[in-house]
Amino acid sequence: MAGNLVLPSWRKGATRSAILGFLDQVDEIPPEDRVAVFDNDGTMWAEKPNYTQLEFILLELKEAVRKDPTLADKPEYRAILHGDSKGLHEMGLERIGTSILDLFVGLTPEQFSSKVASFFAEQVHPERGVRYRQTRYQPMLELMDELRRRGFDFYIVSAGGAEFVRVIGEDFYGVKPEGVVGSQIDYEFTRSAHGSARLVRANRLVASGPNEGAGKPPNIQRILGRHPSVAGGNSPGDAEMLEYAMAYDGPSLALLVNHDDAEREYAYESVAGTFAAGETITDTAARLGWTVASIKDDWATVFPLHE
Amino acid sequence: MAGNLVLPSWRKGATRSAILGFLDQVDEIPPEDRVAVFDNDGTMWAEKPNYTQLEFILLELKEAVRKDPTLADKPEYRAILHGDSKGLHEMGLERIGTSILDLFVGLTPEQFSSKVASFFAEQVHPERGVRYRQTRYQPMLELMDELRRRGFDFYIVSAGGAEFVRVIGEDFYGVKPEGVVGSQIDYEFTRSAHGSARLVRANRLVASGPNEGAGKPPNIQRILGRHPSVAGGNSPGDAEMLEYAMAYDGPSLALLVNHDDAEREYAYESVAGTFAAGETITDTAARLGWTVASIKDDWATVFPLHE
Repeated sequence: MAGNLVLPSWRKGATRSAILGFLDQVDEIPPEDRVAVFDNDGTMWAEKPNYTQLEFILLELKEAVRKDPTLADKPEYRAILHGDSKGLHEMGLERIGTSILDLFVGLTPEQFSSKVASFFAEQVHPERGVRYRQTRYQPMLELMDELRRRGFDFYIVSAGGAEFVRVIGEDFYGVKPEGVVGSQIDYEFTRSAHGSARLVRANRLVASGPNEGAGKPPNIQRILGRHPSVAGGNSPGDAEMLEYAMAYDGPSLALLVNHDDAEREYAYESVAGTFAAGETITDTAARLGWTVASIKDDWATVFPLHE
Repeated sequence: MAGNLVLPSWRKGATRSAILGFLDQVDEIPPEDRVAVFDNDGTMWAEKPNYTQLEFILLELKEAVRKDPTLADKPEYRAILHGDSKGLHEMGLERIGTSILDLFVGLTPEQFSSKVASFFAEQVHPERGVRYRQTRYQPMLELMDELRRRGFDFYIVSAGGAEFVRVIGEDFYGVKPEGVVGSQIDYEFTRSAHGSARLVRANRLVASGPNEGAGKPPNIQRILGRHPSVAGGNSPGDAEMLEYAMAYDGPSLALLVNHDDAEREYAYESVAGTFAAGETITDTAARLGWTVASIKDDWATVFPLHE
């Protein structure tokens, strides 16, 4: 794609044209409404074979069991460690989720961040063998840069834990901690034995629940206080956020990444579960007029070429 | 105070020296920890005779009653409009609060912001007769500027409604909407008759409750994701936030504004209610080693001299 000064990793075609067409209209959007919200897993970086956060949790769980072998007998942990899908299903997401949050109860935000930072410094992607930074999508980084060049503020809105994503937000995306909207852990305000104020993690999310689906737009408003005119996603959990950007009163862009490239990335498509029963997310995109980026057809390059 | 290039509205003395002493140590704070959180009412602008947000609510209530006179018979509204403190006390804060939130139920964030913007464009401070922008404290604006010059990110952390403060955040303090942490209204995600996604206000705050007291530090972490090294406040509702900044592992500044100038501003001191029973907030400051700014003694100028 030599010769493309703008979005060089995007192949010529309808999708690239639609994005460039939107970028041409940005002058009609007042500066304060130049707000772009992008999902993280599967939108800005790869989410297969496992969400990166799950890889982190598995390592932490193994480490906890190494220190205290009796933990391996806890039914929730046994099911997780053995990939026992029947057991996991029977116990249910809430019970399993709580058992995972139990691993980090009582940590301060700094202590938790430090564990996450070590994970990213030490671990590589299980199938590609590269640092997680190299699993970001080059075309999406170029789009992020183009949006910023046009005065957009760029935010990450992930179903992943806010505190997990914040650790790499600045380095991976130039996004400060306050620009990350994610699932929020509940904190307790306490004082140490010396009377020093501190926050420690509880074993529950805040009452509004995970940052997913119809939960994303309210969290965007609560935390960022702005109505996005651009949104990017890849799954039914992003559908309401994409709809919300499309409802912006002016030019808008809703971009769906379609994982259809088993060769260079992964091939899978989510069915829009609670969003629209039985509908695939690309059908939803067609129905609601979103722009679809086919990894196979629209991306000349998938991953960054060098660190 | 001619000759003071830095903090010109701060009189020479122990308080100004303590602030300058802190500013001299900023090099020891890593850039990502240069995080300053300041309360709004009574810290960055005047909060007497009423919180500005209460003036807004009173006007909205009167307008609602003008359009629908039967509303004046609702006991909660009658008590508010007649300043019936006995009635207000008997009905309790939760019932009164809900009746106020009822006034705005169903509004989109944009519709609510537009009402707030009109208020600030049209109304003046009831006693000083100036625009609310002129009720900001000049010395605090100078401190905000000095902190920013040294690489601090400056945030507002108010018990007031986040959506109320966000309307003036950029103009009054150069703070973007995502830099305002306030009490958060709950939203519902809905679709218009045409199928367009929207958020509308519910008549309740989010489950974590008002952004006050021991609620401030957890909200700072949830929303900003950073540990402040500088905090400013003026009341018991700011105490835990000031404690939390003092607990930063490095140089820190906790600044308490003391309203002791009936002549130029107001003279009042809050007792530290739930924080430390029976203790005044300046006693708390002395006990915990906060820096206290006496409006009477430390501020050469209180309000900005011109728009």
